[in-house]
Amino acid sequence: MNKEIKQPVILGAGLVGTLMSIYLAQRGYKVRLFEKRPDPRKKDVERGRSINLALSNRGWKSLAEVGLEDTIAAMVIPMQGRMMHDQQGQLSFQPYGKEGQAINSISRSGLNELLLNTAEKEGVELFFNQVCLDLDHEHGRIKLSNIGQEHEVDSDLIIGADGAFSAVRTALMKTDRFNYSQYYLEHGYKELTMPPNPNGGFKMEKHALHIWPRGNFMLIALPNLDASYTCTLFFPFEGAPSFSSLRSEDEVLKFFQATFPDAVPLLPNLAKDFFDNPTASLVTVRCFPWVKNRTLLIGDASHAIVPFYGQGMNAGFEDCRVLNAMIDEFGGDWDRVLKNFQTHRKPDADAIADLALQNFIEMRDLVGDEGFLLRKKIEARLHALFPNRWIPQYSMVTFNENIRYSEALEIGNRQRTIMDAVMQQAGIAQSWEGMDFEGIVDQLRGNF
Amino acid sequence: MNKEIKQPVILGAGLVGTLMSIYLAQRGYKVRLFEKRPDPRKKDVERGRSINLALSNRGWKSLAEVGLEDTIAAMVIPMQGRMMHDQQGQLSFQPYGKEGQAINSISRSGLNELLLNTAEKEGVELFFNQVCLDLDHEHGRIKLSNIGQEHEVDSDLIIGADGAFSAVRTALMKTDRFNYSQYYLEHGYKELTMPPNPNGGFKMEKHALHIWPRGNFMLIALPNLDASYTCTLFFPFEGAPSFSSLRSEDEVLKFFQATFPDAVPLLPNLAKDFFDNPTASLVTVRCFPWVKNRTLLIGDASHAIVPFYGQGMNAGFEDCRVLNAMIDEFGGDWDRVLKNFQTHRKPDADAIADLALQNFIEMRDLVGDEGFLLRKKIEARLHALFPNRWIPQYSMVTFNENIRYSEALEIGNRQRTIMDAVMQQAGIAQSWEGMDFEGIVDQLRGNF
Repeated sequence: MNKEIKQPVILGAGLVGTLMSIYLAQRGYKVRLFEKRPDPRKKDVERGRSINLALSNRGWKSLAEVGLEDTIAAMVIPMQGRMMHDQQGQLSFQPYGKEGQAINSISRSGLNELLLNTAEKEGVELFFNQVCLDLDHEHGRIKLSNIGQEHEVDSDLIIGADGAFSAVRTALMKTDRFNYSQYYLEHGYKELTMPPNPNGGFKMEKHALHIWPRGNFMLIALPNLDASYTCTLFFPFEGAPSFSSLRSEDEVLKFFQATFPDAVPLLPNLAKDFFDNPTASLVTVRCFPWVKNRTLLIGDASHAIVPFYGQGMNAGFEDCRVLNAMIDEFGGDWDRVLKNFQTHRKPDADAIADLALQNFIEMRDLVGDEGFLLRKKIEARLHALFPNRWIPQYSMVTFNENIRYSEALEIGNRQRTIMDAVMQQAGIAQSWEGMDFEGIVDQLRGNF
Repeated sequence: MNKEIKQPVILGAGLVGTLMSIYLAQRGYKVRLFEKRPDPRKKDVERGRSINLALSNRGWKSLAEVGLEDTIAAMVIPMQGRMMHDQQGQLSFQPYGKEGQAINSISRSGLNELLLNTAEKEGVELFFNQVCLDLDHEHGRIKLSNIGQEHEVDSDLIIGADGAFSAVRTALMKTDRFNYSQYYLEHGYKELTMPPNPNGGFKMEKHALHIWPRGNFMLIALPNLDASYTCTLFFPFEGAPSFSSLRSEDEVLKFFQATFPDAVPLLPNLAKDFFDNPTASLVTVRCFPWVKNRTLLIGDASHAIVPFYGQGMNAGFEDCRVLNAMIDEFGGDWDRVLKNFQTHRKPDADAIADLALQNFIEMRDLVGDEGFLLRKKIEARLHALFPNRWIPQYSMVTFNENIRYSEALEIGNRQRTIMDAVMQQAGIAQSWEGMDFEGIVDQLRGNF
C-alpha cells in the first residue's frame, strides 16, 4: 500500500472533524469534509442560547496551533473557579488553579462556525446533508445519502469524526474482533436558560462556573457572551426525585424552591423550559481498534465521555494535535502514523473517560463537603510550595497539557493514597499548616 | 397494555430459541419461530463431524422439563473428567466431580434437529430463510426478508434468541440508554477432526474431555458418537506462536510435533485441516436492559460468553426454564414476567461470563500445575467430608443447578480466599491430610 495519502475524507463537520480538516489542509492535503446535518451557518440559530462548553488548555493549544488563538480569546468567558450555591443560597468560591488559570466558557455553535469558516478559507471542501450509510474500509469506499440521493466516495484516508453515535464506527463494528462498549449513566440532563438582567448584565458572578451540588444530583450554570447563563440539571431518570417523579409545572417549581432556592428567581421560564426542553442521556463509549486499514476514528467517535471534567471537546482537539504531530514524526508514512496514533492515544482516552465518571461524584457530592475542601486546601498548598512536584489532578488534566491524561490518572491515584493517609491524622483540620509538606511530596517520588 | 399475550414470535431457531418455543407451545401458546438460515434438517450435514458441546445439569434439567430426558440420554457421551496430556504425551485424569457426575458431549446439529422436530410436533410454526432487518419494539413489528422478499410480522411478544450477533439486539441498541459491550479475546479457535480407529473405535479414552494445556494456549478434544473426536485449538491470533506465525503446512506439523506430540499421529489431516478450516474469534457480549416493552432477549443474544466453562448452551437453556417458571409465578402477567426475568437473571449472566473468562486461564495454564492439583485434591476432600457445606466452584456451576451462577461466583470467591491461606501453610503438600478440615469449612460460614 502506498504510504502517502492523496484524497483524505473526514466524516463529521462538528468541532473535532472540522479542526482536523484545518490541520490537514494546512499541511497541503486536499480535504473533503462530509456532514450529515445542514450547514449550521445557514440556519437561523438562536444565538446566546446554544450550549456552551468549557475550553481548557488542551483544546486551546490545538486551536493556537492552527492560528486561531486571538480569535478564540475574544469569544470566551474565563471562569476562574467554582461558585458553590448551598441550599440556603450561601455562596462560596473555589479557584480551579493558580492565579491566572481558568477554564473558558465558549459557545459550541459559535466555535463550530469559526472552524467551518476557517476550514473553507484553507481550501477544505465542505459537503452538508450527507448521511453516511455504510463504509467499506478495505477498499476505502463510503456510501452516502444526500437528501435521498445515494452516491459513493473513494478515499485513501477516511477519518470518522462523526460523534458518539458514529456511523463510521458502526461500520467498523461489523468487522471481526472490534471491542466496543457503550455505558449509560442513570442520570440524564436538561438545559434551562437564565436570561440576562433587564439592564443586560449578568445575574450572577460572571467569571465562575456555578454549581448547586445536592448529593445525588446537581445544577450547574456557565456564562454566555450575551450575559445569559446556560443552566444544566444533572438528575436521575428514575426514582425520587427524578425526571420521572416531577410531573407537573407545580411540582417542578416546588422542587426547585426547596432545592435551589436562590436560582428560582433567576429562572423566569423554569417550569415551561423544564417540560419543553428535551432530557438527554449521558453515555461513555469505548472501542478498539480505532484503525482498520486506512479508516481512523477520532473524538467522540472513538471515545465519547461524560461531561463532568469538561474534557470531551478538549480531548478531541488533542486527538487532532497528536495526530498532526505524528504525521511530522513519521514523515507522512501513514501506516505508521495510524498504528502509533491508536496505540499511544488509547490509554489517554480510557483515562479521561474514567476521570470524567469520577468527577461527577466529586462535583455533585464532595464539593460541599468539609473534609473535601480541607483536602483541596492542603493540595493547593503543596502545589504552591512544590509547583513541579505536586500538581493537583484537576490541574494536571485542565492546565497542564504536557501531562498525558493517563499520567494524570496514575499520578492522581498515588496522590489520593497519600492524601487519604494525611486526612486520617487526628486533628488535621487544626494542625495541617504545621505539617511536613516536603515529606508528603517526597512520598510521591520523582518529578513530573 | 394487555397483560396476556396471543401471538408470540421467537427469532432464532438455534438451540435456545427452539427450546423456548417448545416451552411456550407446551403451555398452549401458538408460537411462530423465524430463522435466518435454511432448515438444517434439509441440508446434507456431515453427521458426527459437526461441533459438539458439553451438556451439563442446567441444560439437562430444562430438556427434561419438556420431556426430552430419555431421548437426550441416548445422544450423549458422558465425560467424567479431564484427561490431561502433557508435553511428553503422559496422561493424567482429573475427575470433574463425584462418582457418577459427568458432563456430556453432544452434537450441536443433532440436538438442534431433535429440538426442531419436537417444536414442530408441539405445533410451533417454523419459518426458515427469514432475515430480521429491523424491529419496532414499540409496536411489536418485525421487518423480515425471506430470500429477498420483505414482509412484516406483528407480535405482542417478541423473543430474540438469535445469537451473539443478534439482529433483535442490534435493533434495541438504537434505543436510548441501552448498555452494551462486546469484548474479544486475543485468542481464536480452530477445529480439527480426529477420525475413529480403522476398526471404528475411539482413539483415546472415550469418557473424558481431553486437554493439552500449554500455558498461553491449549488443544482440547470432545468425543463424538461415531468414535471421532472434535479437537479445538485455542490459540493467539498474533505473536509467536500464533495463527499468524504458522504459515505453512510444514510449520504447522513441526509445531504440533513439538507441542502436542501424542496428538499428531491421531490427526492424519492435521496440516490440511489447519488451513482449510476457519479461525473463529471468541467474544463476550453483555447488555442491559434485555426487555423493551414486549421484546425480550435470551441466550447468546443477551449474554454471549466464551466456551471455557462449557456453559453457553446450558445458560441459554436455563434462561428458558427460569422464564417458564416466572410465567407460572406471575400467572401469565407478562409485564411482571419480563420485568422480573431480566432483574433476576442479569446477575447470573454476568457471573457465568466472568467465570468462563476465568476458566480459560485455569484450563490452559493451571491444570498442569502441582499446586493447583493439590488445591483441587484438598477441595475434593472437603466436599467428600462436608458435601453440603463445601461444594467446589466447578461443581456448583456444573452439577448443582439449584445454585445460581451468581451464588457460585460469590461463594467460589470466598472459597478461593480461604484456600489461598491454606495453600500458604508450610509443608502443606505433606501435611494436608491431617488438617482441621472442619475448621476450614467453618470459615465459609453458613450452608448453601
